[in-house]
Parts: sequence; C-alpha cells; structure tokens
Amino acid sequence: MKVEKISELTTNRLSVYLRCLNEIAAEGARTVSSELLARKFHLNSAQIRKDLAYFGEFGVRGVGYTVEDLRDHLKKILGLDKQHQLCIIGAGRLGTALTDYYRFSQTNFAVGALFDADPEKIGTKVGGIEIFDIKDFAEIVKKDKIEVAVIAVPAERAQAVLELITASGIKAVMNFAPVPLRVSDDIKLKTVDLTTSLESLSYFLAQPKNGNGKSVKPNVKVHRNQM
Amino acid sequence: MKVEKISELTTNRLSVYLRCLNEIAAEGARTVSSELLARKFHLNSAQIRKDLAYFGEFGVRGVGYTVEDLRDHLKKILGLDKQHQLCIIGAGRLGTALTDYYRFSQTNFAVGALFDADPEKIGTKVGGIEIFDIKDFAEIVKKDKIEVAVIAVPAERAQAVLELITASGIKAVMNFAPVPLRVSDDIKLKTVDLTTSLESLSYFLAQPKNGNGKSVKPNVKVHRNQM
Repeated sequence: MKVEKISELTTNRLSVYLRCLNEIAAEGARTVSSELLARKFHLNSAQIRKDLAYFGEFGVRGVGYTVEDLRDHLKKILGLDKQHQLCIIGAGRLGTALTDYYRFSQTNFAVGALFDADPEKIGTKVGGIEIFDIKDFAEIVKKDKIEVAVIAVPAERAQAVLELITASGIKAVMNFAPVPLRVSDDIKLKTVDLTTSLESLSYFLAQPKNGNGKSVKPNVKVHRNQM
Repeated sequence: MKVEKISELTTNRLSVYLRCLNEIAAEGARTVSSELLARKFHLNSAQIRKDLAYFGEFGVRGVGYTVEDLRDHLKKILGLDKQHQLCIIGAGRLGTALTDYYRFSQTNFAVGALFDADPEKIGTKVGGIEIFDIKDFAEIVKKDKIEVAVIAVPAERAQAVLELITASGIKAVMNFAPVPLRVSDDIKLKTVDLTTSLESLSYFLAQPKNGNGKSVKPNVKVHRNQM
C-alpha cells in the first residue's frame, strides 16, 4: 500500500517535470540543471534530484541533465512512448466535452469510442468519433484493443458501468461521477470529482474570515499538483 | 496547516453525504441511519457518525437522521445555501467545455462571465455567456460580484492569470492548467490536472504485470473520492 502511494505521487511529479522539460526544449535549451528547473517552475531542486535518481542516474555533475535524453527517459518511465486507446462511457454533456478535450490534448491516448444507452445517440458521432451501444461494450473493447475507460455517466449509473468495464478486462479507469465506487484491487481507478472540488470552494467562501475582503498577511506558498 | 487538511477531507466527505441524501430523498425516504447510508453508498458508518458529530448533534439514537434536516444542515455547513458567481478564464476548448458543464450542473455556482485575450472571441458568447476582454477583468469581477475564478488557460499563461485573479480580490480559485502555481496563503486554490491523471494511468499500463491480461485474485476495495 505504501509503495503504491509513493509511486503515484512520484509519477505525478515526473509528469510535471516532463511538461517543464517540453517548455525548456521549445525555448531551445539543450541542457538543464535541477536548480534551473526548480527556479523556473517553482519546484524543489532536491526533490527533483531524488525523484530522478530513484529511476537511475540521468544527470552529469556540474552540467545537469541533457534535455532530450531526460525527456525520452521520462516518457519511457511514464509509459508515454506507447499509444493507448481510450473510450468514454456516457455521451452526455461531460462525455462530449471530455471527448473534445482529450481529442486535442497532446497525450498518448486516442479517443477510440464513445458509449451510451440512448437509442437517439447511438450511431451518431462526436468530433468524428462514433457513439456505440453500451450493450456492445465488451465486443468493441476487444476489437479496438481499448485499454482505458472514462466514466462520464450520472452518479447512480457509475457502479454498474464500472462492473461492465471490469468484466471487459480493462484495467485502467478514470471516473468523473461524484460517488465512491467499489473496485477490485487489480484495477487502477482515478476519480476526478468536479462537483466536490467546487463545493470545497463554497465551504471556504462560507467561512467568516474569507467573505469580508480583508486579507491577512499574504505569505506566498507554492501549490503543487494534487492528483 | 493540519487543521486545514482535516477540514478539506471532511468537507469532501460531507459533499458526498449530501449527494447520497439527495438520492435517498428522491426515493421518498424521510429518515436514514448511518448504517443504511454506509451500506447503500459503500461508506463507513463510524466515519459518517464522526463527521456529522463534529458539526453538531444531528441524529436521534435508534431513529437515525431526518433526511430533510440533515440536507439543510449540510448545505449550510458547506456554504451551499448561497449562490456564488463564477468566471472562467480561457475560452478555448477546455474553458468552453467547463462553461457548458457548470452551466447545467446542480451546484450553487453560476457562470457569470468568460474571459479571453483573443480579439476574435471577445464579444461572442458560449451558451449565452459573454466572453469579455481579459483587460477588463478587475472591473467586471467587481461589477458582477464574482467570487470564484476557474483557470482554463495553457500552462505557460497560468501564473500570470493567477496574479491577475489575486489582484482582483477573488479568494477562491480552481486551476485546470497542468503546472504548479505560486499562491499567497489567503487564497484557496484547487488544482484539477486532467493530463497528469491520464499520465498516471499510462504509467500503470506500462508496468509488466498490468499489460498481459492476467488478473491477480481481485479483492474488492472501496475507492473513495480523492479530491
């Protein structure tokens, strides 16, 4: 359990480093030190060195890292050197928005299919991607070698959909439905709850100290990615 | 620091309880026990009692909670009994999708304005909501009493946008840009990083044990909301 947790926090940081390196490469730099990376992107240089050392020795003392080599290494570590097919279940407002978003994101995931139960939606397309009948889920997952499922159905349907996904053999799932889900532990499930995130801001705004416009002495802190 | 962390995890759970109670109310139930809530929604009944006791005594021994009263209490605790104006900065693919999503979500936030720097977008509308010039940000925030800002700009623009938000007096921010941001500690910043979430699934798929279709003995576990 502890190893899994460390690994996820670490890989999330590696994801961030990779995007920082992409920016640095776009600016034309060929080498970079952990100190420069840290300064430029508000990261911790000791943490960078520790994270990268965990996966092998990339840096050269006094020179830093070769940007291109480090990017290639990080892509390989993160599994971003391979393309994966992704499907989205639920072709409603959120599912459609996510299709559009992921279709144009520079990731190694391609949206291969959408699924819905509504006869009026089945057979139509969203941005060139077909909406299939949820009844044909297992068949299409197998045929199209889909490895990742995104749950974008209403809360009350999410558990049933997760069971369908599990039965199909898919091991990686991203859930946007705002409910806790039961999952078998050979499945990797990420939950992104847009409603709860907003409600936590609502709670913050409801506290007396935050509504009156007075600000306490603002100590700048760095807010790192939480997911 | 520690109090803040506990409070956020607790309020996230309260958010989940509230949605569960909404479902129960829709089914016509007037009272509910922590055991029934736990069983029906895969929650922990002791945790429910502890969380609710933290905010006062709601339950009646042997009867449970009155659904309507508990919902009202939770809404008040979470600040969901008041409407808030929200604005989205960045009218690109993600900003547009979020506008559409939040416009129809049953939350107490209303999307009041979009902002962009692109002259071709300024003055047009997304789902009836006007896109304003980012130069007029402070003025419109003040006029429309906007309390929450959602950052949906590319990574390299996010820090500058956050500084604009901070200067306007807004205290609650949701960031969808996949970069760490520096923030003064009187501001509540939530980061939702859709790219990093996907990349962590990619890492999982790249591990030898997960690609071969063999499944280990599946022990069911409950995956709670992480945000």
